[in-house]
Amino acid sequence: MNGFSVVGFNWESSPAATELEIVVMEWLSKLLQLPKSFSFSSDSGGGVMHSTTCEAFVCTLLAAKEKILDPIGRDKAEKLVVYCSDQTHFSFQKSVKIVGINPKNIRHVLTSKSTNFRLTPQSLDEMIKRDVEVGLVPMYLCATVGTTSTTAVDPLGPLSEVASAYNMWVHVDAAYAGSACICPEFRHFLNGVEGASSFSFNAHKWLLTNLACCCLWVKDKFVLTKPLTTNSEYLKNKATDSGHVVDYKDWQISLTRRFQPLKLWMVLRSYGETGLREVIRKHVKMAKDFEELVTLDKRFELIVPRYFSVVCFRVCPYVIGKKYDYDPEANEFNEKLLESVNATGCAYMTHSVVGGVYFIRFAVGATLTEDRHVAMAWELVKNQATSMLYTPTPKL
Amino acid sequence: MNGFSVVGFNWESSPAATELEIVVMEWLSKLLQLPKSFSFSSDSGGGVMHSTTCEAFVCTLLAAKEKILDPIGRDKAEKLVVYCSDQTHFSFQKSVKIVGINPKNIRHVLTSKSTNFRLTPQSLDEMIKRDVEVGLVPMYLCATVGTTSTTAVDPLGPLSEVASAYNMWVHVDAAYAGSACICPEFRHFLNGVEGASSFSFNAHKWLLTNLACCCLWVKDKFVLTKPLTTNSEYLKNKATDSGHVVDYKDWQISLTRRFQPLKLWMVLRSYGETGLREVIRKHVKMAKDFEELVTLDKRFELIVPRYFSVVCFRVCPYVIGKKYDYDPEANEFNEKLLESVNATGCAYMTHSVVGGVYFIRFAVGATLTEDRHVAMAWELVKNQATSMLYTPTPKL
Repeated sequence: MNGFSVVGFNWESSPAATELEIVVMEWLSKLLQLPKSFSFSSDSGGGVMHSTTCEAFVCTLLAAKEKILDPIGRDKAEKLVVYCSDQTHFSFQKSVKIVGINPKNIRHVLTSKSTNFRLTPQSLDEMIKRDVEVGLVPMYLCATVGTTSTTAVDPLGPLSEVASAYNMWVHVDAAYAGSACICPEFRHFLNGVEGASSFSFNAHKWLLTNLACCCLWVKDKFVLTKPLTTNSEYLKNKATDSGHVVDYKDWQISLTRRFQPLKLWMVLRSYGETGLREVIRKHVKMAKDFEELVTLDKRFELIVPRYFSVVCFRVCPYVIGKKYDYDPEANEFNEKLLESVNATGCAYMTHSVVGGVYFIRFAVGATLTEDRHVAMAWELVKNQATSMLYTPTPKL
Repeated sequence: MNGFSVVGFNWESSPAATELEIVVMEWLSKLLQLPKSFSFSSDSGGGVMHSTTCEAFVCTLLAAKEKILDPIGRDKAEKLVVYCSDQTHFSFQKSVKIVGINPKNIRHVLTSKSTNFRLTPQSLDEMIKRDVEVGLVPMYLCATVGTTSTTAVDPLGPLSEVASAYNMWVHVDAAYAGSACICPEFRHFLNGVEGASSFSFNAHKWLLTNLACCCLWVKDKFVLTKPLTTNSEYLKNKATDSGHVVDYKDWQISLTRRFQPLKLWMVLRSYGETGLREVIRKHVKMAKDFEELVTLDKRFELIVPRYFSVVCFRVCPYVIGKKYDYDPEANEFNEKLLESVNATGCAYMTHSVVGGVYFIRFAVGATLTEDRHVAMAWELVKNQATSMLYTPTPKL
């Protein structure tokens, strides 16, 4: 099910769709133990279902932009600066371009292996200071819980403190890892989210929900909806005029909306919090098992510690007679290994590169994955590596 | 069916989804007799399935913006002007704000009853000239085939001629009425589309397809994708590198995509062009019947001629003893009439206001509507009006 066809642009056009969305977003917010300031039960908080993180970025960027330009004037628009780390998902950069921020003013703060590719408050603060000194205006920070390459977790509390000193909007993108935080043992990864202005995660990634379902909460719905609100004669209606209903068209890019909450409602009602936590825990356990298998084979190494259900690993450079971490031949070897694994058609893994190091990403997340698949995947990797290591390059 | 859950961000992640989308967009383009320049078979044309018109606006506005700013420099961004009519759908204004165009530079060219609320080339040209004289830069024109309030049709050919003299991007928004143009007898409403840069219509409005399905074609896919293209290590793949595949992530706002073409493919295969034309013709015929009933009752009048399946009508001011077209009491009477019709729960109509005149919109478009519903709807309107006209206001 992917959301019934309901023209739910405003409350009146489909009260059930809107009311169910509010209910579902409140349930989810409790499941994630989000601070009350993000809830409809607070003065100005609330949640909305977008399609993708890109949409959440665009809408919160617009809100932040209007909020900051209102008092200082539109002519300062070219001076606005947004911050993220070099590990932030590239859709952030795309969204920044969409809302018309000067592309020169996107700061990708460098991360390093020494901090497991986390964005550090110090390096953020230094970069902001340099920008402020030359007359630029810091506007928005995108922090990530579970980066795409290595599932790194940015320290939300300390980062928000830095950003709040400059009156910036802080968005927390937990697209993938947010789902894990419904388990009490993983909730600590969201510590500090109370300092953020907005938070989003994708239920379609790891919460058994069909594409596309990005859940976004904001602390100030009035700021969010201001740049997105439109009025037109043919949409005038008594419910909107009363001020007592939510018109979700003003919380997103498009006017038209599908009956999205139904699919998430179905998932929540079918599995319940216990069932959903079981799924997450099972996946994490399987990734942990894979991680252990990797560490037991001395030819392999982990690139970063595993937090969730993604294992980042590679064949160590020394195995192919190389000394340095970022040796090009080590990268090439691992690239070929990944290709040969995927070419079997028995498993599909992906890659990334951080700090010049090419590595393989093993991710558990499909509902049908079982222990035996994990064991099989590892056998496959191990055997392909063995055969590559002991097969001499054919001489032509 | 609302599009399977496929993470089709680039070609490689789901070749079938991309290839089917190309096929479906080409079929539709033939059905609409779009010029070859919008087709993948041309040097640079092509089509993509967005969710909503808002998305098509945002993406084409970004393309137009980058195209025009590239040679003259980003510092001219505040001078860019976009044009539409006072009848253009308000999502255009929202989209313009989203991409960071100065809201002061949106020109809503006035239309009037004398031209049936069409945007005239003369008034557009005059407005552009005034802007150019004060140093502003015309960038984008949104022309509409089938406006929301009255289904007015802007003259595409003459408007494109004016716009092309200023090197502007011309987008044709045929959200509702585009579907009708699959019938040869309605295709003339698209005459002149060959002068446009892009064209979109919503298959979810009147082509039996589930929400949300906005079909967009452009003449220059390279200009469209330039501001939307992103690259990242973890998305690198041989198919993209070959340059022979379409990565639809660069044709839209978001990265993630659903398997949208399947639903349109199903509709096209199930109904065929004959079946789809039958549906359109049946709806238009029913609206025409309603229109005839309105004109036979001298107490009522049409606000504009009916082109498609929407009838715009009201009780004439003289019936309640008023002389002027835009009499507030005539407006109030028709507003009450609409409320009383909708309050019966037997039919649902909407309203709009053009040129100060409040009127009722009767729209046929649902698959289950039959002649008897139309007759019943008219009886309802007639009887409610009769009872309102002969019921004295109760004295308290």
